[in-house]
Amino acid sequence: MKDFYHSRIKGMPSIVERKEPIIHGSTAEDGPLAQKELDFYEKNGYLFKQNFFSEEEVKALQKELQRNMHDNQTSDEPYVVRESEGDEIRSVFDVHHNDAFFEDLSSHERIVNIAQQLLGSQVYINQSRINFKPGFKGKGFYWHSDFETWHMEDGMPNMRAVSCSIILTDNYSYNGPLLLIPGSHNYFVQCVGETPEDHFKQSLKMQSLGVPDHDSINWLLEKGGRIDSATGPAGSVLFFESNTMHGSNGNISPLPRSNVFFVFNSIENKLVEPFANVPARPDFVANRTNIKPIEPKAFDLGKKSASVY
Amino acid sequence: MKDFYHSRIKGMPSIVERKEPIIHGSTAEDGPLAQKELDFYEKNGYLFKQNFFSEEEVKALQKELQRNMHDNQTSDEPYVVRESEGDEIRSVFDVHHNDAFFEDLSSHERIVNIAQQLLGSQVYINQSRINFKPGFKGKGFYWHSDFETWHMEDGMPNMRAVSCSIILTDNYSYNGPLLLIPGSHNYFVQCVGETPEDHFKQSLKMQSLGVPDHDSINWLLEKGGRIDSATGPAGSVLFFESNTMHGSNGNISPLPRSNVFFVFNSIENKLVEPFANVPARPDFVANRTNIKPIEPKAFDLGKKSASVY
Repeated sequence: MKDFYHSRIKGMPSIVERKEPIIHGSTAEDGPLAQKELDFYEKNGYLFKQNFFSEEEVKALQKELQRNMHDNQTSDEPYVVRESEGDEIRSVFDVHHNDAFFEDLSSHERIVNIAQQLLGSQVYINQSRINFKPGFKGKGFYWHSDFETWHMEDGMPNMRAVSCSIILTDNYSYNGPLLLIPGSHNYFVQCVGETPEDHFKQSLKMQSLGVPDHDSINWLLEKGGRIDSATGPAGSVLFFESNTMHGSNGNISPLPRSNVFFVFNSIENKLVEPFANVPARPDFVANRTNIKPIEPKAFDLGKKSASVY
Repeated sequence: MKDFYHSRIKGMPSIVERKEPIIHGSTAEDGPLAQKELDFYEKNGYLFKQNFFSEEEVKALQKELQRNMHDNQTSDEPYVVRESEGDEIRSVFDVHHNDAFFEDLSSHERIVNIAQQLLGSQVYINQSRINFKPGFKGKGFYWHSDFETWHMEDGMPNMRAVSCSIILTDNYSYNGPLLLIPGSHNYFVQCVGETPEDHFKQSLKMQSLGVPDHDSINWLLEKGGRIDSATGPAGSVLFFESNTMHGSNGNISPLPRSNVFFVFNSIENKLVEPFANVPARPDFVANRTNIKPIEPKAFDLGKKSASVY
């Protein structure tokens, strides 16, 4: 397979133009997004849908989030990641596998249909997590393109994936919302350095590789003209393209920030061997051949939450 | 002298009501602030004046800021504080003493007259600094009341001082603007811990003492109802009360944040012995008796900048 996107290089990094389309042949007729929403996503590399879930649905989702945190309180499963200082849970990974409610949520037609429209194909979940970002001491996350990591370390061949972040606490400008550089999805920024084995375990807690240089970020910001913040009430949903440059500042405010995070990948963009010289995660190796596309399901989130689990 | 505000205590901290007035007898007739501005300051503990300085004045100020940084590039004076990682200058302190331009600026009638009106008396500069907060890696600063430190470590007896921050780069929500809790100036939050000697040298780089507990911050936020951000274009000026709870998040954005910072103290609120068992800074000891009120001066910032220095 030809690798269009070299990274973790030695020497001076360069910026490469994106090879793939952003919207993969879909129009408003495919639904559910309107043409102006597709156009916004294509231009800016993200789409923020305010109040996508109703107040009642948000309550059900928040309840399940708390229930999941409670279930995992004393867990020593590798998918439960704690704060580096202290014992608090920071994230629970792979909830589309290890939590029945979130597995159902990951196939809900209201989000899957949008992912299908954006990627122009059937989709599957490449990874998922719940994030519990505490107030007062939430740490920032430096600028990065998810695709750079997914390509190099996980073997995602092309830019044909979309992240979906379901916001379960109000996001203000001051409690560490996601920051995005509009238009940055059009450029692949090479990063300097080589990937050590098992980097993925480390990178859940702190970044060191796959970090773009200052000049490239300045260049993207000059091109994009601004930094956008994903602020809005709980129940809003952010879709952002796999290669959109994003990050977040810390959070000294008392207000925590929680979300559910699904990465939808096109069924036509299944993983291959990592492009860096690292071993792939075993579950990702299995996904290369075994993975099936999601069948979107319709169900009432509130009822599901109350009656089944 | 009776100490109304105990802090650095052992055991559970409590919250004490403010003893002093906020506006010390002034009205709009004293000028230059209008009554609604005085009312806003009294209620919220701060006043943000957008575009207080003209574009031309901002250019002159920015030029002097760069000139000062350049002058201090290789300085090993104790008032030049560098980033803990690397050699970049983070702040230059006491610029009202050690830099002729900023000494003049500190007596400019446009800011001194406001300080006099807010404090209801003649004023002097208790401390000053220039801050150069770099982009990409600007660190946050946790919630604190300046008065708590000034009282305990420097011997400021009462809440009758105002900080004036002249903003010299555009402050966006995402490049680490000052965050304030409105109404927090009405309450003194006791902090836990004891003060080591020479704490002031350390605290320029990182905080450890004088840190309020989470419950108190939550309480203040519930009382105040919101967090405000001091965002606005270069040339805006923020006045905030000595006891207003404030802090800032980090700054991963490429956009730096620079400002000039003057603390005006009422001439009727001269320093005494520190209220914690620590030695006072020698210059602060001298100020207890020697300090003279500022004579406000009128001059053209641009001309001053170009012709004199």
